[in-house]
Amino acid sequence: MRLVSFETGDRRTYGLVREDRLHEATPAFRASYPDLRAVLAAGKAAEIDVESKGLNLADVILLSPIPNPDKIICVGLNYANHIKETGREKPKYPSIFTRYPSSVLGSGVPLLKPACSDEFDYEGELAVIIGKAGRNIPAAEAKDHILGYSCFNDGTIRDFQRHTTQFWSGKSFDDTGSMGPWIVTADALPNPENEHLRTVLNGQEVQTTPIADLAFSIGEIIEYVSKVTRLVAGDIIATGTPGGVGRFRSPPLYMFEGDRIEVEITGIGRLSNPIANVN
Amino acid sequence: MRLVSFETGDRRTYGLVREDRLHEATPAFRASYPDLRAVLAAGKAAEIDVESKGLNLADVILLSPIPNPDKIICVGLNYANHIKETGREKPKYPSIFTRYPSSVLGSGVPLLKPACSDEFDYEGELAVIIGKAGRNIPAAEAKDHILGYSCFNDGTIRDFQRHTTQFWSGKSFDDTGSMGPWIVTADALPNPENEHLRTVLNGQEVQTTPIADLAFSIGEIIEYVSKVTRLVAGDIIATGTPGGVGRFRSPPLYMFEGDRIEVEITGIGRLSNPIANVN
Repeated sequence: MRLVSFETGDRRTYGLVREDRLHEATPAFRASYPDLRAVLAAGKAAEIDVESKGLNLADVILLSPIPNPDKIICVGLNYANHIKETGREKPKYPSIFTRYPSSVLGSGVPLLKPACSDEFDYEGELAVIIGKAGRNIPAAEAKDHILGYSCFNDGTIRDFQRHTTQFWSGKSFDDTGSMGPWIVTADALPNPENEHLRTVLNGQEVQTTPIADLAFSIGEIIEYVSKVTRLVAGDIIATGTPGGVGRFRSPPLYMFEGDRIEVEITGIGRLSNPIANVN
Repeated sequence: MRLVSFETGDRRTYGLVREDRLHEATPAFRASYPDLRAVLAAGKAAEIDVESKGLNLADVILLSPIPNPDKIICVGLNYANHIKETGREKPKYPSIFTRYPSSVLGSGVPLLKPACSDEFDYEGELAVIIGKAGRNIPAAEAKDHILGYSCFNDGTIRDFQRHTTQFWSGKSFDDTGSMGPWIVTADALPNPENEHLRTVLNGQEVQTTPIADLAFSIGEIIEYVSKVTRLVAGDIIATGTPGGVGRFRSPPLYMFEGDRIEVEITGIGRLSNPIANVN
């Protein structure tokens, strides 16, 4: 099952994608569950009633599949080749930072390069979406708490990221990241470790990795994070990026107006965003 | 004016403190604005209709004055004496990290020491609460966006804070920080730089500083943060802690069940929390 959130006319709504058509949740279902996060919190993802008539995906504006999560948790330095390119050692614990919902858009809409920086970089990642709340979740039970998976672009303003030891300012610019195009539920993708991620900038492959190369597995990340804070339905964990980011290329490769950045994961789909300047 | 959020019976509500009595917002007012954040977003803080009959503060459970903020933004290393005790240099940019609303309680209720650590530390701070949304706010105009001020305890699990370069895991444990007891609005506290902060553990003063010793001023912090992300009404900025935290004492001084930690700021009040173990 593929879950989407989208904007059509002047309303924000949600539904399912079947083949290449988008089926909106019925007004009656949406009256009980106003957004996808509310559906997940109620444990009703498998029971969404949708309109039989489908819409063209091209006729709507996709949002991040969970536009209003309680938490977006990002893992840094989680592929061996990216750890190596930054010159760091493999860490003992996952390195965690946050993003705000205001920094994460859907597929198709422009990511916005701020005027104050010319170092707008991409980071293709696998996102895990939590379906069932929990604290102190053992790695072996983590899959019980996962709703599904999506593609994530942890777009980063590199010079701001290096202002201090904390990544916050590089990772928090409004409208610089994206998730989507949809969530593929775990029943349809039981082993995401078997999939492959690639990031493509203007048609050129810039990152490529098997998901199996994650330094901390999805279960280990969920165990660590849930020791600290209760995970709730709709929480997003971006599991980290592989080697090949723009900053560590020679010469560096950053994104500018008119570029297009895509994150593809086999079994999920392609998250695609043009780059625009902030007006 | 002093704004509070609180729990009474089985409902979460809000109101004003006048002298030592708590006056709840009227049902009609709450029907339009279900919580204090909604009041601020509508620019109605000065117009809250309250019940004439007051409640005893002791008869309610205080919440963080903004229990559901969009963002809690924390500044690290922002007093010269704390920068010195950590062995670091004065930074060029403010060092920013986040907390989750689930990690911030109100005054009076127990902060919870997690079983997985014996390094639960205090950090007394001045919190600034945003009243008017804005992006790219110049320091000179920052005061126009400030609703008011509160006391903040940026309670920290020190060993987790040091797991990686990112502070996230030390700062994100559920129920380990607090804000309150109320927000004093800026009209009643026009110059918070003239006030004094102290932190008291079990009656012993452990931190003391004039707010004027902030390395980055409130205006400079708001200018930097709002360059990155749009601030919205109810957002909280914890401006950093002075020297005297438990970790840099010899021997280190951490908090355990039965302790009481208090953050007092002249002109605002006293935020007081006992420490308990997680059940």
